[in-house]
Amino acid sequence: MKDLKDKILAMVKSDRADIESTLKENLNPYLDLVGEIAEHILFSGGKRLRPLLMILSARICGYNGDYDKILSIIFEYLHAATLLHDDLVDEASIRRGKPAAHTIWGNSTAVLVGDFLLARSLSIAVGTENTRVIKIIADITENMSQGEIHQLIRKGSLELSEEEYMEVIRRKTAVLIQGACTIGAIIADAPCEQERTLSEYGLNLGIAFQMVDDLLDYISDTSVLGKAIGADLREGKLTLPVIYSLKKADSKNRLKMEEIIKNKNFSIDEFETLIEMLNKFGGLEYTEKKASEYIKKAKDALSFFEPSETREILLNVADYALKRSA
Amino acid sequence: MKDLKDKILAMVKSDRADIESTLKENLNPYLDLVGEIAEHILFSGGKRLRPLLMILSARICGYNGDYDKILSIIFEYLHAATLLHDDLVDEASIRRGKPAAHTIWGNSTAVLVGDFLLARSLSIAVGTENTRVIKIIADITENMSQGEIHQLIRKGSLELSEEEYMEVIRRKTAVLIQGACTIGAIIADAPCEQERTLSEYGLNLGIAFQMVDDLLDYISDTSVLGKAIGADLREGKLTLPVIYSLKKADSKNRLKMEEIIKNKNFSIDEFETLIEMLNKFGGLEYTEKKASEYIKKAKDALSFFEPSETREILLNVADYALKRSA
Repeated sequence: MKDLKDKILAMVKSDRADIESTLKENLNPYLDLVGEIAEHILFSGGKRLRPLLMILSARICGYNGDYDKILSIIFEYLHAATLLHDDLVDEASIRRGKPAAHTIWGNSTAVLVGDFLLARSLSIAVGTENTRVIKIIADITENMSQGEIHQLIRKGSLELSEEEYMEVIRRKTAVLIQGACTIGAIIADAPCEQERTLSEYGLNLGIAFQMVDDLLDYISDTSVLGKAIGADLREGKLTLPVIYSLKKADSKNRLKMEEIIKNKNFSIDEFETLIEMLNKFGGLEYTEKKASEYIKKAKDALSFFEPSETREILLNVADYALKRSA
Repeated sequence: MKDLKDKILAMVKSDRADIESTLKENLNPYLDLVGEIAEHILFSGGKRLRPLLMILSARICGYNGDYDKILSIIFEYLHAATLLHDDLVDEASIRRGKPAAHTIWGNSTAVLVGDFLLARSLSIAVGTENTRVIKIIADITENMSQGEIHQLIRKGSLELSEEEYMEVIRRKTAVLIQGACTIGAIIADAPCEQERTLSEYGLNLGIAFQMVDDLLDYISDTSVLGKAIGADLREGKLTLPVIYSLKKADSKNRLKMEEIIKNKNFSIDEFETLIEMLNKFGGLEYTEKKASEYIKKAKDALSFFEPSETREILLNVADYALKRSA
């Protein structure tokens, strides 16, 4: 997979460089500390998936202006804002391999800098003077906060269904990625079908992306992931591998799994026992299968477009989202 | 002052009733808990100052449609969102006489429901399809988060200047009230001068409003205020009464004041000593004088409009902002 990642990175090298400088130039804080904290979260090795998807979506629809770069960072600012708030909500201590902002500057500052980044992304959206663009950003923000709340209030619940899980990940993750692709089409003044196609690509990619994230929390390791493995479970966050395995397990094994899940201070041995169960009852395999179905849908949508370098990158991104290790 | 308050309330009775129902009808949460928490903060005896100001501003510019009610609640949602985040930042335990939301539902939920309310207000703003309206809302949000951060990072600093204090209260409080008045004029399609006049009214009213708030934290009592008296000081939040008195005190008394301020667990006796100092060195008087100057500016701006019942209410609101006891 390193090959595929390197290939994609080479193809978007200049776009990424533009994104980095645009991210830095548009923060406009009047307080140095705000800039410092925002930069801590923004410049700690993010992949820039969301801005890239917006830029590529605009490009595949024939856009060749230079307004896409500034617009694209809306999605990274929004993403960073939710990371700041979520890490606090999840009491996460590591993010992107660095200490989470709230552990350095305190909860209060993390909340307020998150608010600032949310406001900045909104201000940039308003700069388009395009009410459809602004509406999508507003809807994304509503969805994300509600998805996160939904996840929060169902923490620790062993009754979480796959349907509910799907609703949560759609809102908290997929709508942002979908929005990036849709807005790419909108600023390119793309015909309705192209916009719908990219929206479908983004939605399916976003769902798969989160599923793989949830999978990696069980099968990756901390140094590669940039955050602690098993974190979801420790937070009582039940994801598809567990939901599916709980459903499929016989009552004895289900009980065993439930005990490990309920005990948030599980040992390494217990965690390994749980992973065995996730293998035994197919939760890991099922999640990967589901994710690959969504990736297939995302890629199929792109067949609407003629072959091009941009289409190839978007297809590669979809493959990478599925096969990545972090 | 009770008379003035009753008079105003009688004059805006039907507007307030409309605001209450509109606040309830437009939350649209898909989760019951989100509605519950949002309602906890929204329906605990707020004065609805901000929505009222928007409605009255539209009316004084001749607006007589029925779109103002829904728009007006943007300002209450935004206000409630900042209360949720600020109470958490300030570790406040009481708000509007009830337990603060984060003490009931936890910090995480308070953060996320705040995000949701922010997003809802944004969505309603987007519904206007008026990019000026949306831009003002985006600017307000940026200003408020930065004003709060500014206040937070200067907590406990005995060197806070009056200029810096003014910058903080303008951003964290006044721009929202100013925005409500300005947007009232905008939806009424008011001529530029009317809009500017109302914007000036709102800005000056907002500044005075915060100054009086800061004053009441020393001279009111908890049961009237609906939150703990002396809370600002306990949080290390230096406001104008203290800033001014510290500047005017001789070195011996300044030292005495500084000791009380630095000790966040000050006794009632110490707090009373501090209040004596605020009297002796003129901080309370100065703050009231300043607030009344801003109220005068606010009222003077309104002389641009012909006398009318609406103008009378706006003038009364300005008087009440200065003379209120909570």
